[in-house]
Amino acid sequence: MARALSHFNGKPTLSLSKPNHYPPSPSSSSAHKPTTVAIAQTKSYWASIEADIEAHLRTAIPVRQPVAVFEPVRHLVLAVPKAKAPALCVAACELVGGDRAQAVVAASALRLVHSAAHAHEHLPLMDRPNHKPAIHHACGPNIELLTGDGIVPFGFELLARSVGSGQNNSDRVLRVIIEITRAIGSQGMIDGQYHELQQGARSNEEWIEHVCMKKEGELHACGAACGAILGGGSEEEIEKLRKFGLYVGMMEGMLNWVGGNEEVGLMDVVEGLRVMAIKELENLSGRNVEPISSLVEVASLCNL
Amino acid sequence: MARALSHFNGKPTLSLSKPNHYPPSPSSSSAHKPTTVAIAQTKSYWASIEADIEAHLRTAIPVRQPVAVFEPVRHLVLAVPKAKAPALCVAACELVGGDRAQAVVAASALRLVHSAAHAHEHLPLMDRPNHKPAIHHACGPNIELLTGDGIVPFGFELLARSVGSGQNNSDRVLRVIIEITRAIGSQGMIDGQYHELQQGARSNEEWIEHVCMKKEGELHACGAACGAILGGGSEEEIEKLRKFGLYVGMMEGMLNWVGGNEEVGLMDVVEGLRVMAIKELENLSGRNVEPISSLVEVASLCNL
Repeated sequence: MARALSHFNGKPTLSLSKPNHYPPSPSSSSAHKPTTVAIAQTKSYWASIEADIEAHLRTAIPVRQPVAVFEPVRHLVLAVPKAKAPALCVAACELVGGDRAQAVVAASALRLVHSAAHAHEHLPLMDRPNHKPAIHHACGPNIELLTGDGIVPFGFELLARSVGSGQNNSDRVLRVIIEITRAIGSQGMIDGQYHELQQGARSNEEWIEHVCMKKEGELHACGAACGAILGGGSEEEIEKLRKFGLYVGMMEGMLNWVGGNEEVGLMDVVEGLRVMAIKELENLSGRNVEPISSLVEVASLCNL
Repeated sequence: MARALSHFNGKPTLSLSKPNHYPPSPSSSSAHKPTTVAIAQTKSYWASIEADIEAHLRTAIPVRQPVAVFEPVRHLVLAVPKAKAPALCVAACELVGGDRAQAVVAASALRLVHSAAHAHEHLPLMDRPNHKPAIHHACGPNIELLTGDGIVPFGFELLARSVGSGQNNSDRVLRVIIEITRAIGSQGMIDGQYHELQQGARSNEEWIEHVCMKKEGELHACGAACGAILGGGSEEEIEKLRKFGLYVGMMEGMLNWVGGNEEVGLMDVVEGLRVMAIKELENLSGRNVEPISSLVEVASLCNL
């Protein structure tokens, strides 16, 4: 893992060596098993964020003429399996003392770009191995390609339009645009997708970590950092939340790979990521980290 | 044409009825035939703009690791047939009194998004009719898809990063981001590509106009408007240059369709667009419109 993470954002961020074994953290032991109340609160918190993002998207994507273009957009955005990156954006904003409304547009933009990436990943191209789980194709490949192509600029449009008059937030919004372009661009998600295509090394754990860092990891890192930027967090808070997001995203990505021969090794790494994620939150003094920490403490146990 | 244009930007902009015949404009008659000097000046002006955009792109896209990702990006961006929209962006900026440097990043972003659209248009999808002219595919479809997907966010990143400290230009840059997202999005280029897929109506002139308005027209309109915005033009100048760009782009698009049975009718429309383009420039009082007008007066004659 150390090697995969050492180039995150171009500078070494971790000097940990590869963990051979992570002892169970106290919070996952029976002594700290989440109570029913905690589980209910967690579910309710994340569900309310998802509902707010979805409500914003439904308003932002009206079904209008040409319906043949807009209906697939809405269908795709609402049907694609949800990543946690958009919700993490909202939660990080609230953690640093920001308003939910300040982050909901960026969260929606993240949903949009993630949906487009998902659609393009499932396009039936001539040279594409059919290793992806089957998804329901509501439209032909041509329309799915165009839909993805239309969704990405729409995400940036939503963001650029979110600059409020008198809010003086244009610098933050521009920074968020840069964050998202990098997360989904050639050095982020595209790098992960590219390496995923190189199938020869599939059994290699290091390779899975790299793919998950670039695909899910950096998208979630970006989500958390954007939320902290928009909510007015300090640079230190932004970077801690970025790392928290990276670990959460990598966990999410790597859990998708569990099931093959590499299961035991991968689960060790996932547990290591969980410990490191919690560690980042410990240093956010004076902030209520309970809601966001539930993402790895409670939510992952409840499959939220 | 009136019908196709009446919904441009959501409000009627033209009340012209469809022209049955356009008399040759004075400037295209033999009395005003461009001199050799004028042709040389025009060539040199547009060539210098293209060289500046290309120099910026070569710096912005270094070939770095992973080479397998970045080499196709540079190859694609520099190999795709050039649209005039980026150069128009720079020329419009200079026309309203701005510096070339203020527009060259937006022009580069336009080159990037146009390259991505071009790459995706030529992807060999299962349900795609093979009616496009063959282009040299340097990579497999998978890499061409990813390359296009990576180029678009990179274009927006370049733009967002172009905000200069102390320049106080963030509002203009955000406006340009919105302009470009709309030009390439579901109501712009994607709409044109979608309608182009509806092949049944191919012989219909109205349909060709719509496709060309949405694809080439709005991209060039966007280019000219962005240049005027960045150069500090008035709202009136921005809108006049936007219309000029629309007509220039439609001319460029429609000339690609000439060759079939509809040739005579289309050439009438192209001549009508040329006349309307020049008319927009007549009202830009106090500005030197000569360089930009050469795009339809001289450049098109010289196939620049």
